[in-house]
Amino acid sequence: MVGESEAVLALDIGGTKLAVAVVTADGSTHGLLIEPTHREDGPDAIIGRLVAMGHRSIEAAGLGPVSAVGISCGGPLDRVRGILTGPLHLPGWIDVPIVDIVEREFGVKAALENDATAAALGEYRYGSGRGTSTMLYLTVSTGIGGGAVINGTLHRGAANNGGEYGHILVETGGRQCLCGRKGCLEVYASGSSIAARAREAVEQGANSSLSELTVIRAEDVSSHAQAGDQLALELWRETTTVLASAITDLVNILEPELVVLGGGVTRSGRFLLDPISAAVTGDSMPPAAAAVRVGLAELGDVVCVVGAAGVAFDLLSETADSTPLRAEATRG
Amino acid sequence: MVGESEAVLALDIGGTKLAVAVVTADGSTHGLLIEPTHREDGPDAIIGRLVAMGHRSIEAAGLGPVSAVGISCGGPLDRVRGILTGPLHLPGWIDVPIVDIVEREFGVKAALENDATAAALGEYRYGSGRGTSTMLYLTVSTGIGGGAVINGTLHRGAANNGGEYGHILVETGGRQCLCGRKGCLEVYASGSSIAARAREAVEQGANSSLSELTVIRAEDVSSHAQAGDQLALELWRETTTVLASAITDLVNILEPELVVLGGGVTRSGRFLLDPISAAVTGDSMPPAAAAVRVGLAELGDVVCVVGAAGVAFDLLSETADSTPLRAEATRG
Repeated sequence: MVGESEAVLALDIGGTKLAVAVVTADGSTHGLLIEPTHREDGPDAIIGRLVAMGHRSIEAAGLGPVSAVGISCGGPLDRVRGILTGPLHLPGWIDVPIVDIVEREFGVKAALENDATAAALGEYRYGSGRGTSTMLYLTVSTGIGGGAVINGTLHRGAANNGGEYGHILVETGGRQCLCGRKGCLEVYASGSSIAARAREAVEQGANSSLSELTVIRAEDVSSHAQAGDQLALELWRETTTVLASAITDLVNILEPELVVLGGGVTRSGRFLLDPISAAVTGDSMPPAAAAVRVGLAELGDVVCVVGAAGVAFDLLSETADSTPLRAEATRG
Repeated sequence: MVGESEAVLALDIGGTKLAVAVVTADGSTHGLLIEPTHREDGPDAIIGRLVAMGHRSIEAAGLGPVSAVGISCGGPLDRVRGILTGPLHLPGWIDVPIVDIVEREFGVKAALENDATAAALGEYRYGSGRGTSTMLYLTVSTGIGGGAVINGTLHRGAANNGGEYGHILVETGGRQCLCGRKGCLEVYASGSSIAARAREAVEQGANSSLSELTVIRAEDVSSHAQAGDQLALELWRETTTVLASAITDLVNILEPELVVLGGGVTRSGRFLLDPISAAVTGDSMPPAAAAVRVGLAELGDVVCVVGAAGVAFDLLSETADSTPLRAEATRG
């Protein structure tokens, strides 16, 4: 059983940011540190900085020693062996034994998890998924990923990857995806794909306020659409349509109680959520549509850190007894 | 704990056939009876015949009284309350309290399950899914349905329907589905949709050996394709392509160890399976593709009966202790 006062260290290794915090059993962060990754520095230097951030975070939190460490990172990774086999967002990180390194540095057990899977656990246990039993999490960021808690259990699957929601078909024979298939969700609705579609349209001479920008980002498409630009509105409509299509498939397949949307693109808030939610309700099979709600993540930028902490608390529970996945069980 | 000698009665209520058997804990059927439904007779007459078949099956099996009854039927139904709320394949069956009726007739507890969900349990426990932990079952029959066992647990979902795999998008903006969406798997690859697509092509004057038939069924498309007819080959290619697309989505989302194909259309065997299996392996994300196998159901026409028996054994386990989902636990 995990004690109420117990705290773990959580490390999130992103392509642009490193985020580190001490997290207590109620999911609150202490001594949170966020710094740029500078991925050009390579694994040794970055892991050195990550470990130093960990020690500083523990000191800043002032809660004494931590009981375990949770690490979240983009895949591919080998969760069971604790190795980053070659994360796509960190070129050159081949077979990095991150769990061994971290255990040696902090003197406690560590666990590694795919960042989207960790985020799903974070939202389920400490965020908008509290009180649900089957919940899906979709991160709409530079790329698109996701994770699921099914019947109260974090889903990992036979590939130990927990699912790749960016590779659901949304446009038959459409844009070429890096995965080899055409028309995947990710090549339309990820932040980089929204920006790429906008740039292509502007290059092809579309009349739009976006053409005045030197660099077009996904958030520009959102803000120009909200200001009434026709091209931006059309691009945004396509974005919400394909997201709704993929989520409708997910709802028809898994009949969750809740689908949580997180990641940078969701900073557009209800301008993103409302059309998606309406389309999913209208297009899903009636019993599944009646049972599901689509909502925004609550944990914001710390979702992966808090999720990594959840993984660390699970590690403590596994080595002690079989505490349920719920946060309640770790409270007093 | 369910004893080795324990037997249950299983009732499957299909739109064309009623199937009834006594099933022992190893999944074998005894006193199997299959008779036409004659759905024009209405619920009272049909349930009367179903109950009579049950008593005859128990007598023919010669194993003594049964310990419980499992019932499988197409949805919509209310599994928890044991009511057929309005099954699509049985017009006029509104709010039929089938569990109450059956419990009164046989004097033991009964449980109701969606037929595709029951079939998934049947294949998992007694068929091709033995030894797996996460397995999906897809029935390709008059319609398309499915069910999942995830991490050793039969998935029911928040809508208690267990998933609607016929309503995965395969052709953006394609054929109109009864669910309201366009381009669902079911409007291309179900037996009735395969036949409908063939009839439309022939009516539009396509040159094909199928045009010599007075009625075109899905199995005709398969046999004429195997005989080399170009139109039939094209229709079959489209069928396997959309099935592979939906299964690729399922594999990317859930990363199962096994996807089992059952139902009438799978009587085409490897002519159906081989192109689907190749496309799923080629199109799924590499870790999920490496972890999954696509195969044919083993239980054939009795899959729903055997699955319904599985549901009855689970009912006995729930009322006794918490026996795991595996058949092994019910063996000696």
